[in-house]
Amino acid sequence: MDLPSKILEQAVEQLATLPGVGKRTALRYALHLLNEDEERVRDFAEAMVHLKTGLYRCRHCRNISDTDVCPICASDKRQRGIVCVVENIQDVMAIENTQQYRGLYHVLGGVISPIDGVGVHDLEIASLLRRVETGDPAPVEEVILALPTTMEGDTTNYYINRQLQPLGVKVTTLARGVAVGDSLEYADEITLGRSITGRIPFEG
Amino acid sequence: MDLPSKILEQAVEQLATLPGVGKRTALRYALHLLNEDEERVRDFAEAMVHLKTGLYRCRHCRNISDTDVCPICASDKRQRGIVCVVENIQDVMAIENTQQYRGLYHVLGGVISPIDGVGVHDLEIASLLRRVETGDPAPVEEVILALPTTMEGDTTNYYINRQLQPLGVKVTTLARGVAVGDSLEYADEITLGRSITGRIPFEG
Repeated sequence: MDLPSKILEQAVEQLATLPGVGKRTALRYALHLLNEDEERVRDFAEAMVHLKTGLYRCRHCRNISDTDVCPICASDKRQRGIVCVVENIQDVMAIENTQQYRGLYHVLGGVISPIDGVGVHDLEIASLLRRVETGDPAPVEEVILALPTTMEGDTTNYYINRQLQPLGVKVTTLARGVAVGDSLEYADEITLGRSITGRIPFEG
Repeated sequence: MDLPSKILEQAVEQLATLPGVGKRTALRYALHLLNEDEERVRDFAEAMVHLKTGLYRCRHCRNISDTDVCPICASDKRQRGIVCVVENIQDVMAIENTQQYRGLYHVLGGVISPIDGVGVHDLEIASLLRRVETGDPAPVEEVILALPTTMEGDTTNYYINRQLQPLGVKVTTLARGVAVGDSLEYADEITLGRSITGRIPFEG
């Protein structure tokens, strides 16, 4: 589609870099902004830049935060001896939304993936080990590995577990199994298999 | 969903003002930007602001333009005696994409809609009449009304036509009918009716 203006074209190109946004949708977004007040568009643009200039990574858990130490790490109402290791900040949000977890987090920022050129040193693994070794901000009793069940996730789990063993900390991982409400019939074999091998005492 | 940061929340709120974007999609966009370089995000933000600060409305046709007079109005390869009246700049783009029209445009910026509080003076109708009266930038022989076939569009057509009558200019409107490739069976009655009453000589 030919656009009548280079400036509009640039805006469309930028908007089309957003995930899942094609040229048509980007144009729709751009024309929407075009019809807004200048002040509104400035606020919009500023909020985007602020993402890069205003946000901290929490000193302890590497989650995004408005402060040097995030509210979760700063809270004394959490179980500070438990650290849940996740791939990214979306995972923190997902677990927080369950309201079932009261421990702290450690955000790796990815998983080991030689194909994508992501190695151990690109991830927040050293900072996790240091956290366990030094007991800062709190002595760690248990590390929960909550990485994705992919080859990369498994590799990362394996590596971290091996590094943690000498430090004498308890290492656990998420229970995998048939989802609540799903019928066994339609569960995939690997998940159902994990549900059986990982069976737990019945609480009746 | 609880977000771990006010700054992220603000970015999500701003992105959720885009048409068809909910909180979840906005969060996806925000996290994408968060993982980009600061310079990339600054470019992104700047392109948005530029939409408001860098763009002109063409002096003649009110289409958006990087210059005071848009390339279409400035071109001597167009049929400068024909002016197509459209609701908005998207319509200009749609007609340009057909590559079937070589005349000029006039962008009203909406249609008369008392319910939405849009009256004659909120639209570029006076500038259209002036264009026909003064023959600036070119003497107008024909005005094509290409407004939407809604009650508001029809009202606007009617109003403009009445204003143009004393000026002795030819006024035409778009042919409406069954779309190319559509079977008659599935066309709605009004469209099919218009196809019949607006029938044209067969070119065989």
